[in-house]
Amino acid sequence: MTQNIYDDETFFAGYSRLPRSVHGLDGAPEWPVLRSMLPELAGKSVLDLGCGFGWFCRFAAGEGARSVLGIDVSGKMLERARRETADASVVYERADLESYAPPAEAFDLVYSSLAFHYIVDLAGLFARAYAALKPGGALVCSVEHPIMTAPVRQEWLSDADGRATWPVNGYLDEGERVSNWLAEGVVKRHRTIATYFDLLRGAGFAPGKLVEWAPSPEQVSAEPGWAKERERPFFLLVAASRS
Amino acid sequence: MTQNIYDDETFFAGYSRLPRSVHGLDGAPEWPVLRSMLPELAGKSVLDLGCGFGWFCRFAAGEGARSVLGIDVSGKMLERARRETADASVVYERADLESYAPPAEAFDLVYSSLAFHYIVDLAGLFARAYAALKPGGALVCSVEHPIMTAPVRQEWLSDADGRATWPVNGYLDEGERVSNWLAEGVVKRHRTIATYFDLLRGAGFAPGKLVEWAPSPEQVSAEPGWAKERERPFFLLVAASRS
Repeated sequence: MTQNIYDDETFFAGYSRLPRSVHGLDGAPEWPVLRSMLPELAGKSVLDLGCGFGWFCRFAAGEGARSVLGIDVSGKMLERARRETADASVVYERADLESYAPPAEAFDLVYSSLAFHYIVDLAGLFARAYAALKPGGALVCSVEHPIMTAPVRQEWLSDADGRATWPVNGYLDEGERVSNWLAEGVVKRHRTIATYFDLLRGAGFAPGKLVEWAPSPEQVSAEPGWAKERERPFFLLVAASRS
Repeated sequence: MTQNIYDDETFFAGYSRLPRSVHGLDGAPEWPVLRSMLPELAGKSVLDLGCGFGWFCRFAAGEGARSVLGIDVSGKMLERARRETADASVVYERADLESYAPPAEAFDLVYSSLAFHYIVDLAGLFARAYAALKPGGALVCSVEHPIMTAPVRQEWLSDADGRATWPVNGYLDEGERVSNWLAEGVVKRHRTIATYFDLLRGAGFAPGKLVEWAPSPEQVSAEPGWAKERERPFFLLVAASRS
């Protein structure tokens, strides 16, 4: 089973204070790009794998999705999601993505934001996500970029000119990475971009648009503290389709 | 026009002493993987963009390719290529890949090893490569991995544990990078993986297999000096097809 760090009290308290937890999708700087990768949602069936507080589920309902199913392993997150969701077209279900099997050929879109890098059996999850899509359906997802997850010590270095420099080591050695982000001992899985593609293609998906996301120059102008976040990509955004 | 560094005497002398120049494909440690990405060559028409000394052209002829056209901007390299090629099915032509337009729908395979990262107008070259393929034809190519080409100073650092660490900065800032590899002022172009994919898809290609190449554990056992080359990927290998 995946570590359920979101039900850890310290982690949950810290996560709840992040801009994306307070302000929702508008507090997530990658959202405008991820949104641009989505298909039209009106009238569609949507599955959100790792829905958290349900921001995307409510967005999809607001766009006219016919039904939205949000899955998360965290009871704390789903409790708040249910409390903040009025739309009857949105349903939440608590399940571990390592084993959750959605209904077959039931969805037009499978969406997942920043959840897949926690998953051990991603081949299995991709296969189940593929089977859950109707033919012609789409997967749109984000993960931490492999450049972010690779290093054993995720700490900025300086080059000989003093420029902020992201450390890459262990890139080819995939597997567990333990960080102390918001709480001690948060376990993620490092995978290369090539492996994400192999897993998608192995499940039957045709990879489409790929984005290596970092804040845009305009976002950095508005938030000068983000300047060094353009030195390396932060998230990997991928769209793929079932043919 | 692309910088023709291969006709620089210092660079050419240094390049000629590299294992891949002395031993050919068997001296290129990525070759076994790149080879595994190739289609069957017997009876096929092959175009090699940036053919250098012609090692791949002769390999393709040896595999039974019906015709092989090798293109390079370097007169010095083509001189040696012609001298070392006996097979009449191989033809070499000197041309600048920035403007070279191959015949339309004439090839089953377009191959390119470590040339595209020198090209300024890669969108144009991909469009011309696509047009040169027969329907169902394949592009198989290698470039320096964007993690390699990103940093302004391409010098190993150490993390707080003393681990060899590759510096990533400037990843999102695409464009010219000047290195002093084999000669002063070698100009390459840094592009992100996402941009390579956008350019391929923009030209009409369907991206297929993607490899982020570094020496295998077996290769490191045989060449212990290569251990740190597994800390980050060295080359990006891509197969794509014309539908």
